[in-house]
Amino acid sequence: MPDRPKAEPRPASPPGAKGALLAPEELEAALRAIGAERYHSLHPFHRLLHTGKLDKGQVQAWALNRYYYQASIPAKDASLLARLPTTDLRREWRRRIEDHDGDGTKPGGVERWLALTDGLGLDRDYVVSLAGLLPGTRFAVDAYVHFVREKSVLEAVASSLTEMFSPNIIQERVAGMLRGYDFVSAETLAYFTPRLTQAPQDVDFALGYVKEHADTREKQELCLAALRFKCDLLWAQLDALHFAYVAPGLPPPGAFRP
Amino acid sequence: MPDRPKAEPRPASPPGAKGALLAPEELEAALRAIGAERYHSLHPFHRLLHTGKLDKGQVQAWALNRYYYQASIPAKDASLLARLPTTDLRREWRRRIEDHDGDGTKPGGVERWLALTDGLGLDRDYVVSLAGLLPGTRFAVDAYVHFVREKSVLEAVASSLTEMFSPNIIQERVAGMLRGYDFVSAETLAYFTPRLTQAPQDVDFALGYVKEHADTREKQELCLAALRFKCDLLWAQLDALHFAYVAPGLPPPGAFRP
Repeated sequence: MPDRPKAEPRPASPPGAKGALLAPEELEAALRAIGAERYHSLHPFHRLLHTGKLDKGQVQAWALNRYYYQASIPAKDASLLARLPTTDLRREWRRRIEDHDGDGTKPGGVERWLALTDGLGLDRDYVVSLAGLLPGTRFAVDAYVHFVREKSVLEAVASSLTEMFSPNIIQERVAGMLRGYDFVSAETLAYFTPRLTQAPQDVDFALGYVKEHADTREKQELCLAALRFKCDLLWAQLDALHFAYVAPGLPPPGAFRP
Repeated sequence: MPDRPKAEPRPASPPGAKGALLAPEELEAALRAIGAERYHSLHPFHRLLHTGKLDKGQVQAWALNRYYYQASIPAKDASLLARLPTTDLRREWRRRIEDHDGDGTKPGGVERWLALTDGLGLDRDYVVSLAGLLPGTRFAVDAYVHFVREKSVLEAVASSLTEMFSPNIIQERVAGMLRGYDFVSAETLAYFTPRLTQAPQDVDFALGYVKEHADTREKQELCLAALRFKCDLLWAQLDALHFAYVAPGLPPPGAFRP
């Protein structure tokens, strides 16, 4: 009889990894190396997006699909919040939810993303309905929510560490899109400005937490696997977009057609 | 503030759907219409696979990725089994698990799928390790397992009804692959033979169950949505394969490279 499939996206301890505990700075270097290899800044879709090579319909498809990711982040964070054991941890994670959901006076990230889809000429009700979403986007985003719900708190926190790599891509994206597309304005892209300060604040906390709590090599490997998993799901969202709207350009039945 | 995203893959009641209860034969016709529009037999990757247009590495990639689907089906069925209320229902669903896991003497579907990957020259340990799996495959398959775990029993049963459409595709696949590929033999494809009788047996039961228990229009719409969701996740698996191995042909970091 065959073995059962493993639950982990990647073997938790790849060959040669069963070594001693990494020093905190070695762990951080290993986390950063994953970004250098796998962060979605390297995906061809982003290269096209950031260099003005897409048409308006393709940019709309990106914003429409990415909305589901944005809108699911507070749900992901809330399911972690519900499992955090201390006031300090919950306060930190509640701040993240507020960043995304707003406080009723200043708009949060989800609302700012809808300003972006508005600015691209998409109907807001259509975006929010998710009717035109690519199934590949849905499955990748839901995989993230399920991961955070089901894995350890440590792995859930580690999976947030793609924010280590986001300030660079945001600066490249905003500059590239303003230069490349006459249908995009600084106002349309206002989503990204607060993220440039929020993301490093998130990372300071989460990276410190991981360095402190990953106190065995096995836990360190689980953190590395969690970050790989997160990179994979960001990458898979761009695969789905690229397949449907760039090459070969085959949106599945029911999906948004520009 | 924007609305929260909806939990359903598609609006449960599309415009015009809020009508009277469908007669059982109308419900069956509506289910079959979903297959005619969305079943993955229509995907360009399957057209290439079935007409001998892929190379051996591409066929390997298909078999390797499809293994994760095969290997996850018993887990999906077991999570439904755990929620079924009667002996009769559980006996029916236990039979499905036996079809896939075998009984210790005759091999089940998972083992037969590994005979297929063996026949294609893939290392069995590598296949079972899932190390080369496309993240898009993982997310789509896991979405199915989560759906069956979280939705109603009725929706879970309805999501199995893609088997209504599978005998046709299996006959087309086996004939087409034997004709198109000199590296494929009837022995390699022996996985599929029992499915030609198992699938109709499964469908008889599941379709009867859905026709009987979807006793309001709202439940009927949930069943139709469940089948659309299932078609979407089969389709998305082929999108991921096509993107990575056919066009543009960009396997993500860490995935199988033929």
